[in-house]
Amino acid sequence: MVEAVETMDGWYSLHDFRTVDWTSWKLASEEERQEAIHSLQQMLTKWEEVEAAKNGSHALYNIVGQKADLMFMFLRPTTNELAAIENELNKSKMGAFLIPAHSYFSIVELSKYRPYKEEHPELIPEIAQRLKPILPKWEHVCFYPMDRRRHGDENWYTLEKDVRGKLLYEHSMTGRKYAGKVSQIITGSIGLDDWEWGVTLFAHDPLQFKKIVYEMRFDEVSSRYGEFGEFFVGNYLAKEQLPAFFKI
Amino acid sequence: MVEAVETMDGWYSLHDFRTVDWTSWKLASEEERQEAIHSLQQMLTKWEEVEAAKNGSHALYNIVGQKADLMFMFLRPTTNELAAIENELNKSKMGAFLIPAHSYFSIVELSKYRPYKEEHPELIPEIAQRLKPILPKWEHVCFYPMDRRRHGDENWYTLEKDVRGKLLYEHSMTGRKYAGKVSQIITGSIGLDDWEWGVTLFAHDPLQFKKIVYEMRFDEVSSRYGEFGEFFVGNYLAKEQLPAFFKI
Amino acid sequence: MVEAVETMDGWYSLHDFRTVDWTSWKLASEEERQEAIHSLQQMLTKWEEVEAAKNGSHALYNIVGQKADLMFMFLRPTTNELAAIENELNKSKMGAFLIPAHSYFSIVELSKYRPYKEEHPELIPEIAQRLKPILPKWEHVCFYPMDRRRHGDENWYTLEKDVRGKLLYEHSMTGRKYAGKVSQIITGSIGLDDWEWGVTLFAHDPLQFKKIVYEMRFDEVSSRYGEFGEFFVGNYLAKEQLPAFFKI
Amino acid sequence: MVEAVETMDGWYSLHDFRTVDWTSWKLASEEERQEAIHSLQQMLTKWEEVEAAKNGSHALYNIVGQKADLMFMFLRPTTNELAAIENELNKSKMGAFLIPAHSYFSIVELSKYRPYKEEHPELIPEIAQRLKPILPKWEHVCFYPMDRRRHGDENWYTLEKDVRGKLLYEHSMTGRKYAGKVSQIITGSIGLDDWEWGVTLFAHDPLQFKKIVYEMRFDEVSSRYGEFGEFFVGNYLAKEQLPAFFKI
Amino acid sequence: MVEAVETMDGWYSLHDFRTVDWTSWKLASEEERQEAIHSLQQMLTKWEEVEAAKNGSHALYNIVGQKADLMFMFLRPTTNELAAIENELNKSKMGAFLIPAHSYFSIVELSKYRPYKEEHPELIPEIAQRLKPILPKWEHVCFYPMDRRRHGDENWYTLEKDVRGKLLYEHSMTGRKYAGKVSQIITGSIGLDDWEWGVTLFAHDPLQFKKIVYEMRFDEVSSRYGEFGEFFVGNYLAKEQLPAFFKI
Repeated sequence: MVEAVETMDGWYSLHDFRTVDWTSWKLASEEERQEAIHSLQQMLTKWEEVEAAKNGSHALYNIVGQKADLMFMFLRPTTNELAAIENELNKSKMGAFLIPAHSYFSIVELSKYRPYKEEHPELIPEIAQRLKPILPKWEHVCFYPMDRRRHGDENWYTLEKDVRGKLLYEHSMTGRKYAGKVSQIITGSIGLDDWEWGVTLFAHDPLQFKKIVYEMRFDEVSSRYGEFGEFFVGNYLAKEQLPAFFKI
Repeated sequence: MVEAVETMDGWYSLHDFRTVDWTSWKLASEEERQEAIHSLQQMLTKWEEVEAAKNGSHALYNIVGQKADLMFMFLRPTTNELAAIENELNKSKMGAFLIPAHSYFSIVELSKYRPYKEEHPELIPEIAQRLKPILPKWEHVCFYPMDRRRHGDENWYTLEKDVRGKLLYEHSMTGRKYAGKVSQIITGSIGLDDWEWGVTLFAHDPLQFKKIVYEMRFDEVSSRYGEFGEFFVGNYLAKEQLPAFFKI
Repeated sequence: MVEAVETMDGWYSLHDFRTVDWTSWKLASEEERQEAIHSLQQMLTKWEEVEAAKNGSHALYNIVGQKADLMFMFLRPTTNELAAIENELNKSKMGAFLIPAHSYFSIVELSKYRPYKEEHPELIPEIAQRLKPILPKWEHVCFYPMDRRRHGDENWYTLEKDVRGKLLYEHSMTGRKYAGKVSQIITGSIGLDDWEWGVTLFAHDPLQFKKIVYEMRFDEVSSRYGEFGEFFVGNYLAKEQLPAFFKI
Repeated sequence: MVEAVETMDGWYSLHDFRTVDWTSWKLASEEERQEAIHSLQQMLTKWEEVEAAKNGSHALYNIVGQKADLMFMFLRPTTNELAAIENELNKSKMGAFLIPAHSYFSIVELSKYRPYKEEHPELIPEIAQRLKPILPKWEHVCFYPMDRRRHGDENWYTLEKDVRGKLLYEHSMTGRKYAGKVSQIITGSIGLDDWEWGVTLFAHDPLQFKKIVYEMRFDEVSSRYGEFGEFFVGNYLAKEQLPAFFKI
Repeated sequence: MVEAVETMDGWYSLHDFRTVDWTSWKLASEEERQEAIHSLQQMLTKWEEVEAAKNGSHALYNIVGQKADLMFMFLRPTTNELAAIENELNKSKMGAFLIPAHSYFSIVELSKYRPYKEEHPELIPEIAQRLKPILPKWEHVCFYPMDRRRHGDENWYTLEKDVRGKLLYEHSMTGRKYAGKVSQIITGSIGLDDWEWGVTLFAHDPLQFKKIVYEMRFDEVSSRYGEFGEFFVGNYLAKEQLPAFFKI
C-alpha cells in the first residue's frame, strides 16, 4: 500500500483568461469604451484593497500570442469569493468586451515530503506566508498545468513515498538555482480541475521560463513522470497601462 | 471467462451545465430579466414539489471558472422525465439566456461485489434510499466522469471478480475516512454516455474534494486502473440567491 | 498472412443528429413555427411511404442531454438517396431551426465468420431481411461507434480468422441473453466514416443499454480489442408528438 | 542507418471541403442565389479549360453526412495556382455561402521501392501520366489521410528498406484485386500537412470503398503500421446538377 | 543524472496566423477596404524600418488550405515588442477583418552540443547573426512545432548528452544536403508554448519541404524521438501584392 503525502493548503486560486472582442470594442462609442476601462480600473482598485488587507491577492498580465489577451490571477480564502469575482467581472461594463478564453481552478499547496518538527507547520510564519502569498508583480508570468504520469512502469502513484520524496528533492535543487530569477507558486488541483497541479512562474526576464523548464525536464521526476498542458506567457499589465492598451 | 458483477440501478441522472449569455442578458430589458428569473424560480419550485413527493431530486450549483456558470443535477425515475425537463428548460424564458455548456447522462448505481443474503437487496430500505437519493444541498459540489483502464497489463475488465472486489473494498475504506465530510453518489454510464461512471461529491468544505481524490489516487484501483475526465466544482446556489446572481 | 472475412452488406445508413436552435425558434412567428413543424411532418410521411414500400426505413428519437436534440436514422439502398434526404432536410422550413450536431455514415453489415451452405447466403430470406431491416420503433435508442484495437499485442487485425470467429461467437452468446429486450443493428463503416463499425440498439427499457454494454465489456473481444466512441441515447419521438415537443 | 526511398512527385493537390450556409442561402434573394450558382458554374468552366489543356485537374463531390456538403479536389503544377483558386473561391459570390469545413494539402506521389531501369522514370509516359492525372469523374469518392506508425516495436521508419518494400508490395497485390472497381491516387504530405499521406479513391459503387479498405486493413503494412484519419465519402456533383442541388 | 545542454538564445519569435473574414470584407465599402489595405501596408513599412535597423525581422506568407489565409512571422528582442505588435494589429483597420486562427510563441535558439573554444560563442559574429536573423523572403515557407518523445524506452530526456549529441549531429548531416535549397530557423519554446520547438523552413521550391522532412524522418532522432504538430505551408505575399490579394 503506497502512502500518500499530506499537503498544506492555502488560498484558493483562479486563473481567468480573457480575449478582447476587438470588433465590438471598435463598434462601441468612445464613451462606452471609457466607462468600460473605468469599470476595470475600479475593480482593480477594489482588489488592491483586498490585497492590502491581506485577504487575498491578484495580478493582471497581457498574454503573448492568440491564446488570450489577458490573464487575471486571483487568490482568495474561499471559493465563494472567487465565484463572486467572476460574477462581477462578467457583469461589468468591461466584461461585455472580454470573451472567456480559458480558466484554471486550484489551491495554493505545499507538500509535506520532508518531516516537520512542528505539529502544525502551516502555522510557521514563513510557511503561512507561502500558503497565502502576495503575488509578486514581476514583469513576466508563465502558467502551465501538469500531471504526474500513471502508465505502466512510469507510475508516480505506485512509487514509494521516499522515492517520490527523493525525486522531488532533486527537482527542488534544480529550482533553487533560479532563486531571485524565478518566483514559483504551486497550486494543487486534483479534484478541482482537469490537471493535477498548476505552476505559476514569475520572472524579470522571460528567457528564464525557458531555461528553468528546459533544465528541469531532464530531472527524472519530469522526464519520466511529468505530463504538461498548455503554456501561457504574459507581460505585466499595470492599471495605469490600461488606457493605452485599450486605446483605439 | 471473467465474471461481470451485477448492479442495482436507481434513478436516472442528468448533469446539465449552462453558461449565462451575459451579453444578451445585458441587452435584455429589466422586465425581460425579471421574467426570466421568475421562470427559473417557478421551475425550481415545481422540481421541489417533485422532490417532496419523493419522485425525484435536483440541485443547482454555481460552477467556479469558465467551464460553465450553472450546473443543474436532476434525478428522475425515467429518461422521458429527464428529456421533458430539458425541453422545458430550453423553452423557458431563462433558457434563452443559458447556453448549453456540457451534460452527462447516467443512472444511480450500486454494485454487488459483496454477497447479499437477501434475494432482492435493492428492496432493503437503506439501499432503496441510496438508489433514489434526495441530493444533499451541501455548500459545494464536485462532478467528474471516469473509466476503468483497459490497456495491456492494466486492464480492469480482464481482472478476476474477487481481485476487482478486493481493490474496490480497499478503495471504499479510503472513502470511509471522509464520512460526514464528503457525501458521494456514483452513477453508471456504460452504454449511456462517453465515460463509464460519473462521480458526484458533496462537501461543506471544498478542500475535502482535493483531499479525498488525492488520497484515493494512491489506491491501486485508481493508480493503475483509473482514467479521469473533466472536473467541475461549484458552490450551492439557492433559489433565493438567483436575483442577486443575475442582478445587473 | 491473416485472412479477412467477407461481409454481406445491405442498406446504407445515415445517423443524423440535430440540435434545435431554440433562440431562433422563439424569435420566429407562430405561423413560421407551424409551417416548420408541418414541413417535418410531411417529410416523415414521405419517409413512411418509402418504408411501407420496403425501399428503406427511418426513425426519429429525442436525444437525452446536450449532445443533440434529435437523432434521425435513415436506411436507403443508395448513397444518393441518403444525400438527397440530407439536402431536403437542410432546405426545409424546419431545417432552418435544426443545427447539425453530428452524423455517422455506414452500411448494414453481417459477417461470414460461420460457413454457410448456400453460395449466396444474402439471398436467404431471414438474412435478406436483416440486411434491409425495418427499424423497430421501440421506445429507446442507443448509438455508438467502435473500432477493433490495433496496438502491440492487442491487435485484432493480426489475429487468425478462427480466433476472431471464436471471440465473436462468445460475444454473440452474451448478446443472445438480451433477446427480446435489446434489438441490435450493426453497420460497417471502414472506409466510410471515422470508426470501423456503428452499433444501434433499440430497447423498451433504457436500462438494458447499460446492462448489455456493461456485460459485454467483460467479453475478451471488448475488454482487449474494443475501442468505443461517443454514446447517444434517446427516447422515441412520434410524428404526433412533434407539435408538443416544439410548442412554445 | 535506415535508407529512405526517393519519390517521384507530380501535381500539387488541394482537397477543399465546404459546408453550405443554408440559413444565409434562404435569406438571400432568388437573384443573389442565381448569381452565386452562376459564379460557381463559371469557375467550373474555367477549371475545365485548364483540365482540357492538361494544366491541372479538378473534381466536385457532394459529401454524405455533416462533415461537409461539398468537396473540391484541385490538382495544379504549383502551390501558387492552388492558392489563387482558394482566393478566387473565397471572393466569389458563391463563396459567401460556403463555410470552410476542412482542407488537405499534398502532392501526387509515386515511390521508387522497385528499381527502374531508366534514369528518369518520371519521364516514362505512363508514369508521367500518373503523376499528372486527370481525375476520373466516377460516381463516388473517398478521401482519408494516413500515417505510418512510429511507436516502440511498430515503427515504419526503423524498418529496413527491403522490408518496407516487401510489405508495400503485398499491399499493392490486395489493391490490384480492385482494378476497374477502385481508382486510387496517393498524395504525399509529409512536410506539407498534418498527416503523411492522403488517399483519394474513386469508385462506381461506394461499397467498394468499404471492401478495399477493410481487406487492406489485414495487410501487415496496415494492421501494424497504419494510422488513419477522418474518412470523407461523396457522390459526384456535375455542373448541370448545381441548380437542383441549390434550389430552394 | 542526465546532463542538460545549454542553449544560446536570440530574438523572440511570434508566428501569427489569421483568416480573412471574407463575409465582412464583402460587406465593407470600397473605401473601408482601401483604408484597411493601407493600414496593413503602413504596418509593413514600419516593420521594414525595424528590420533595416536590425532591431527585428518579419515576413508575411499566404497559407495554402483552410488553416489560415495569412501567416505573419515576427522576430523581436523583447516579448513586450511582440505584444505591442499584436495589440497594434488587433486594433488596426485591417485587424477588423482578420480572425485569429493560430499563434506560436518561441525564441531563436542554438544549442551547444558541440564544444566552443570561445567562452561566449554567442558573440561570434556568424552565430550572433544566426540568433538575430533577418528572415529570408524566399518564395515559400513551412512551419511546424515538435517535441522530443518521453515515453518508456523512447525518452529523449533520459538519453546521455553524448548520445543526444551524436543523433543530432547525424540529423544535421541530413539537413546539410539541402543547403541552398532550404533555409531553417529553429526556435525553442519549452516553457513558452505548447510544444518544445518550432521549425520554420524557407524554400524556393515547396517540394523541398516534403523532401527534407521525409528524409529526416528516417534519422533516428526523428523516427524514435520526434513528435510533430500541425504543418503550415505558404507562399510569399509581398506588400505590393496585397491590393490584388484583397481585391473583390
